[in-house]
Formats: sequence, structure tokens, C-alpha cells
Amino acid sequence: MQEDVIYARAYDDQEEVARMIQKYDLLAIPVVDENDRLVGIITHDDAMDIIQQEQQEDVEKLMAISGAHEVGVYMRLSTWEHFKSRIPWILGLAILGFISGYIVQSYESILIQVAILASFMPMLADTGGNAGSQSATLVIRALALKEITTRDALKILVKEFKVAFLMAIVLAMVAYFRVLLFIGHSSTAGVIAPLKVGVAVAVALAIQVISSTLIGAFLPLLASSLRFDPALVASPMLTTVVDITGLFIFFSVAKLMLGL
Amino acid sequence: MQEDVIYARAYDDQEEVARMIQKYDLLAIPVVDENDRLVGIITHDDAMDIIQQEQQEDVEKLMAISGAHEVGVYMRLSTWEHFKSRIPWILGLAILGFISGYIVQSYESILIQVAILASFMPMLADTGGNAGSQSATLVIRALALKEITTRDALKILVKEFKVAFLMAIVLAMVAYFRVLLFIGHSSTAGVIAPLKVGVAVAVALAIQVISSTLIGAFLPLLASSLRFDPALVASPMLTTVVDITGLFIFFSVAKLMLGL
Repeated sequence: MQEDVIYARAYDDQEEVARMIQKYDLLAIPVVDENDRLVGIITHDDAMDIIQQEQQEDVEKLMAISGAHEVGVYMRLSTWEHFKSRIPWILGLAILGFISGYIVQSYESILIQVAILASFMPMLADTGGNAGSQSATLVIRALALKEITTRDALKILVKEFKVAFLMAIVLAMVAYFRVLLFIGHSSTAGVIAPLKVGVAVAVALAIQVISSTLIGAFLPLLASSLRFDPALVASPMLTTVVDITGLFIFFSVAKLMLGL
Repeated sequence: MQEDVIYARAYDDQEEVARMIQKYDLLAIPVVDENDRLVGIITHDDAMDIIQQEQQEDVEKLMAISGAHEVGVYMRLSTWEHFKSRIPWILGLAILGFISGYIVQSYESILIQVAILASFMPMLADTGGNAGSQSATLVIRALALKEITTRDALKILVKEFKVAFLMAIVLAMVAYFRVLLFIGHSSTAGVIAPLKVGVAVAVALAIQVISSTLIGAFLPLLASSLRFDPALVASPMLTTVVDITGLFIFFSVAKLMLGL
């Protein structure tokens, strides 16, 4: 008699069980109740469908779509059903976006003096969002595959800081030359020396890339340690958060370095 | 003798073969060469690994990470290797972001007159990015599952237009009240009647949501008809594109409706 069998409990998470079948290349796995009595089996084809469905749900969380988990329903769902599953995220994030608007508004006097600064806002926000999405995606995946746990948090943040530092150097240089190239055409450029604006934008972008990368790595780790699903805090939620921090960094740096 | 067997060709795409195993709940599938001679089999556990890997690659495309497809490598990759796999997208998108900067700069005279407009730029860009990501994700998935083909393009765009129209109504109302709430604190508000600014922002946001949703659905369909991978044009590429169109819409509407 073989006593060392691989089995699943009736109340185990379906994804965990599917991952066991995948890991051990099983044809099926027995499911037992709390008294070790066999209550059924899960076969390899169930496992494949479960893994696909769970990964699909993760993608939907990444892309801010609630519900509609069933496969092959795009055409069958009515306009109204599509609307209902999409509007909550869009509306919630738009309302969260009020905060970024508030930050911009509170630095309005700076913008009036150096209107050229407004033209760097989109690049700063997007680059932060992209850098944060990258680190968040990598950390979420590594957590899902149990390659890392929340106990590795410090090691991960140090690694992300190093990666972000290298990216920040490259981006700061590009941003600096970009400012010098464009600023000649601005009607408000005369107020401040172009070189100073270039340095300020470069420094702000460098800080934004580093902070966004760290936020992108930190939020999934935080969610995981609080027993929430890490995928929930990925972009677009993350995009909105690093927009807010990015605008604050940008205007603080500009105010300080340009003496406004 | 059973003549009607399910089989794969040696040069078939591995994902297609894995999907056949999943679809028909097979244990294994025979692989034959051009002369119908058996050259091997692909088993259910190979199929499971292939499907997981392909889905992972799709997520990485969605999140702008090239390479690093191998599972469980986060910790093993050096800082330099992480940097090399992440910087191309980040840098490429940042350079593409120059275009949005250029648009903002070309409307600088409007911003100097009505600085409050700058505070709506982040919400407008983010909301467009979110709406576009939603429709792109749904269309990419439906294409991948062969639920739709490029021949359904018109039907899909009509459906997305209807969904976007409903979302635009809700968001325009929220944006209008938001403007009225905030504008009192702006130093440049006196120049233009607040109600007029509110209407302009609401109209711009409505057009942005509709156009972003349609762009999000159209780009994957276009990529697919040109035999590119639809997932390539998902966010963050999409975010950058709808940022550019959104800023253009915003300033055009503001110029027209506020008579600047």
C-alpha cells in the first residue's frame, strides 16, 4: 500500500489544487474531506481550465474590468451589461483623479509664471505609470508563483531601487536634452534660464521613476501581507497613485530649484 | 480502424496545439509530419505549461516588459539584466510622450489665460487610458479565444461606441460638477465664466472617453488584420496614444467653446 499520496482537501482553493496537478504532472488528484474520506477527484482537464480562468481573472484585475469572467461572452453581453461591468472602475478612478487635479491647481501660480512646465506633466505621469506597472507586474507574478514572500520585502525593494536608479539616469539625460530642444519655442521661457528648467525636469523625472518603481513593488507586497489579492493594486489603480505622487514631486522640485 | 483522429502538424504553433488538447480534454495529441508520419506526442501536462507560459507572455506585453518569460527568475536576474529588459519600453514610450508635450506647448497661450485647464489634464488623460485599456483587453481576449474575428470589426466598434456613449454621459456630469466645485479657488477663473469652463471640460471628457474606447478596440483589430499580435498594442502603448489624442481634443474643445 502506497501511503505517501498527493491529495487535496475539499475546502482547498481551486487554483492551489490545479497548480499541484500542474507541478506534479498528474492525471488527476483525489479530494478528501476532513476525515480523509474520498469525496471526488479533480482531473487534468479541469485543472487546465481552472488555471486559464484564474489567469484571466488576474488580467481583468490588471485592466480594471470587474465581472465578465466567463469566457466567450463579449458578443453575448448587452451594451448595458458591458456598461455596468466597466463604469465602476472608470468612475472610481476618475474621482480619485480629482486629487491630481487639486495638486495642479494648488501650484497654479507656478504654471502661470512658467507655462512650459505644463508640457512635461504628461510625460512625467506616463513614465511613472509605466515604471510602476513593470515592477508591480513582476512582483505580483513572483508572489503568485511563490518565488518570493512578503518576508523578502526589503531585498525586493533594494533590488527595485537599484534597477530604478539606472533607469532614472537614462531618463533624466533624455529629459534634460528634450527641455533644451523645446524650450526655445515657449513664450514664457525667458522668465527662467532654460538650463535651470532642464535640470529641474530631469531631477523631477528621476525622482518620479524611482518612487513609482518602489511604489509599484511595495503596494502588492502590502496587499499580500494584509491578505488582499496583490493583483488588485496593479495598474490602473497604480497609475492613478503615481500620477498624484508624480505631480507633487514635479511641482515641489520646480518650486525649489527654480526659486518660484 | 478509427480514421477521424485529432492530430497536430510538426510546424503548428505550440499554443494552438495546447488549446486543442484543452478544448477536447485530451490526454495527449499525436504530432505528424507532412507525410502524416507520427513524429511524437504532446501530453496534457506539456499543454498546461504551454498555456500558462503563453498567457504570461500576454500579461508581459500588456505591462511592457520584454524578455524574462522564464518562470521564477525574478530573484535570479541581476539588477543589470532587469534594467536591460525594462528600459527599452520605458524609454521608447517616454520619447513617444514628447508628442503630448509638444501639443501642450502649442496651446501654451490658452493655458496662460485659463491656467485652471491644466488641472483637468491628468484626469482627462487617465480616464482615456482606462477606458481604452478596458475595450482593448476585452477585444484582445475575444480575438485570442476566436470568439470574434477581424470581420466582426464594424459590429464591435458599434457596440463599443454604445458602451462608451453611456460612460461618457456619466463622466461628463461628474466632470461638470467637479469644475463648478473647484473653479472658485482658481486665480484665473474670473477671465471665463465657470459654467462655460464646466461645459467645455465635460464635452472634452465625453469625446475623450468615446474616442479612447474606440481606439482601444480598433488597434488590436488592426494589428490582428496585419498579422501582428493584438496584445502588443494594449496599454501602455495605448495609454500613450490616447494621451496624445486626449490633449488634442481637450485644447481644441477649450479653444472653440471658450473662444480663446
